Amino acid sequence: MKPCGTSRLTAFTYKAIATLRGPYKQKFAIPRQPNLVPEAMGEMVFKQEFADANGLRALDQFSHLWLIWHFHETSAQGWSPLVQPPRLGGKEKVGVFASRSPFRPNPIGLSVVRNLGSAEVDGKLVLRVGGIDIVDETPILDIKPYIVYADSIAGAESGFASEQPGSQRPISFSASATQALAASAADYPRLKDFIVAVLQQDPRPAWRVQDNDDKQYGMKLYEFNIKWQFSGDKIEVKAIISSDDDPEF
Amino acid sequence: MKPCGTSRLTAFTYKAIATLRGPYKQKFAIPRQPNLVPEAMGEMVFKQEFADANGLRALDQFSHLWLIWHFHETSAQGWSPLVQPPRLGGKEKVGVFASRSPFRPNPIGLSVVRNLGSAEVDGKLVLRVGGIDIVDETPILDIKPYIVYADSIAGAESGFASEQPGSQRPISFSASATQALAASAADYPRLKDFIVAVLQQDPRPAWRVQDNDDKQYGMKLYEFNIKWQFSGDKIEVKAIISSDDDPEF
Repeated sequence: MKPCGTSRLTAFTYKAIATLRGPYKQKFAIPRQPNLVPEAMGEMVFKQEFADANGLRALDQFSHLWLIWHFHETSAQGWSPLVQPPRLGGKEKVGVFASRSPFRPNPIGLSVVRNLGSAEVDGKLVLRVGGIDIVDETPILDIKPYIVYADSIAGAESGFASEQPGSQRPISFSASATQALAASAADYPRLKDFIVAVLQQDPRPAWRVQDNDDKQYGMKLYEFNIKWQFSGDKIEVKAIISSDDDPEF
Repeated sequence: MKPCGTSRLTAFTYKAIATLRGPYKQKFAIPRQPNLVPEAMGEMVFKQEFADANGLRALDQFSHLWLIWHFHETSAQGWSPLVQPPRLGGKEKVGVFASRSPFRPNPIGLSVVRNLGSAEVDGKLVLRVGGIDIVDETPILDIKPYIVYADSIAGAESGFASEQPGSQRPISFSASATQALAASAADYPRLKDFIVAVLQQDPRPAWRVQDNDDKQYGMKLYEFNIKWQFSGDKIEVKAIISSDDDPEF
């Protein structure tokens, strides 16, 4: 499948081998990097053309995998040479190639994830992964084994991105949110841990991070619209609304 | 640049942002993974459209980078679900997604390299990298910073690919090879170290690895055709022929 009128060495067309299904229904609230929220599980559903279990033979020997994927939600927005990474407060600019921003010349994503094994589900080949930072319905282009001797460079210097983001700020749940957690516990037993882990990453855009932020935020995880609000340095989860009960969803 | 008649979610076209220039002139003798031969230096020459030094701002804070690239030399050969990795003696088969084989559904390569800094050379924007495992003229699709907290998973399990390949076997140089090294020392002061590092990786195809292999091999590094041969467990470099003197090159 070659694009019209391009040379072998200047443009390349790839197909989605699988589609990721996961709890993040929108870009907002996705952690900046994989494994910051280990509770985020997803599954890749292979396209018919690539759904051959032989392709995954011996994959279970690897605890971690690389996913290479397409930033389908933001690719239409293009790119610019300078970006403002959230960890620099959204003010300082760095080069796009010094960032993992989705707004790149080629909107290709790269994430290391935990390998949770493959299965056949409803006649489809599925590979389960954990610690994802990828939005629902993302097209997956490649899966590679994580090879420690080649990929793990513990002594590498990462400059402004050296410190792992995240906090230990207190996160509480309102009475109604607690009730909703109990009601969904059978289907989503780890929902509370997941919400806490996501909120520890402070999903607000950098320009919103300031004292006295009393805006109520909403984020979509699984089938829930989750409303939360800062109160001083704490976060309270106000409501967890199932999509069944939420006309806005 | 959308390919003809494909949907937004099933096929994706990317452009080369740069072309890698490096010492490996052919697939043979390229180490299996990056950083096995740290002496392998290359430079990426940016395409005019992407040659904006702003895109590299703050990149010098990162000691290592990810390169995402296209396997242009082998992409026409297609793929199959099972591959025979060299480290399993070329006999046992594993799934293509459990390997870093170039023969993949989407022929995308992934390598971590050392960041040796950018420069303007002959009016072109260039980024120098070390420890490459990429053939000369490879189209580069993306450059990302290596972020230790996200990318380095020292405790990951890598199954059959756990051990770093390579050897400490003795490597000697014939009188004529030694002479050629001396003659090229001004332009290539580290050529000997580079040849030794490449040969420690034993570039032979797996089916050739056997006792009493007395075949003479040739490999092209920089502008040299290098002839070498096993003798028992040792390797002797027989000749180092500059392309100026070699009609076969």
